[in-house]
Amino acid sequence: MREAPSDNIFGKILRGEIPSWEIYSDAHTYAFLDIFPQSMGHTLVIPRSYSLHLGEATDAEVGACLATVRRLLPAVRDGVNAGGATVLTNIGAEAGQTVPYLHWHIIPRSKSDHVSLYKPGEQLQAADAERIQQAIRALL
Amino acid sequence: MREAPSDNIFGKILRGEIPSWEIYSDAHTYAFLDIFPQSMGHTLVIPRSYSLHLGEATDAEVGACLATVRRLLPAVRDGVNAGGATVLTNIGAEAGQTVPYLHWHIIPRSKSDHVSLYKPGEQLQAADAERIQQAIRALL
Repeated sequence: MREAPSDNIFGKILRGEIPSWEIYSDAHTYAFLDIFPQSMGHTLVIPRSYSLHLGEATDAEVGACLATVRRLLPAVRDGVNAGGATVLTNIGAEAGQTVPYLHWHIIPRSKSDHVSLYKPGEQLQAADAERIQQAIRALL
Repeated sequence: MREAPSDNIFGKILRGEIPSWEIYSDAHTYAFLDIFPQSMGHTLVIPRSYSLHLGEATDAEVGACLATVRRLLPAVRDGVNAGGATVLTNIGAEAGQTVPYLHWHIIPRSKSDHVSLYKPGEQLQAADAERIQQAIRALL
């Protein structure tokens, strides 16, 4: 099991050096409230074994996190009387990843919320689509 | 293996009744470009077996999707010269789920993008945190 760098904030939370509002804990994962929530009930799920992000985590770390996300999802949503939820993880600072430790967000959503997530995009144009499709598939 | 309702747009894409820009295909999953992209390269991953969303999918469906997401992630990111990516799934119309078929988004992200994802929230207050923590934990 990998350990987080000693100055990593989620490592400190796991070791109890920094307090957190615990939602759930088991042998492989820990879940707690995000202190900069997108909406009330915004919960983070992290593996106890350290990895930087989804791109370099092990299958076991990802599987354990997803199992916990799915276990918590109804309670997180219903505990704040939300009708839905967004589950996401950010890979890299460019994506808004602020803590270098794999974490999954469970964000309760309501029709009336003001969450800055997922406003509709513009329709994809065929010329762009074909160019991008080729660029991505060339790297697979 | 469950089949999507006959009028489900992703079911139609899987059956080839509606065209799509394919990125990847295997026995359990299919990946294609989102036609209303949050950013260039925005790719969707769906299981071939139908489920409504993450809350009612099987472990096999979720596992297959995450394996494909992780397989595609570097190529989707690098194919459009993005520095990072957000991986997300929406559960319910309240969360912005527009197609009633489990789908994972891979959204390439750059420092300079204008993606309406994940702007910082306000700091959580202790009184709110304790109330919410209790409400969620009571449902677990």
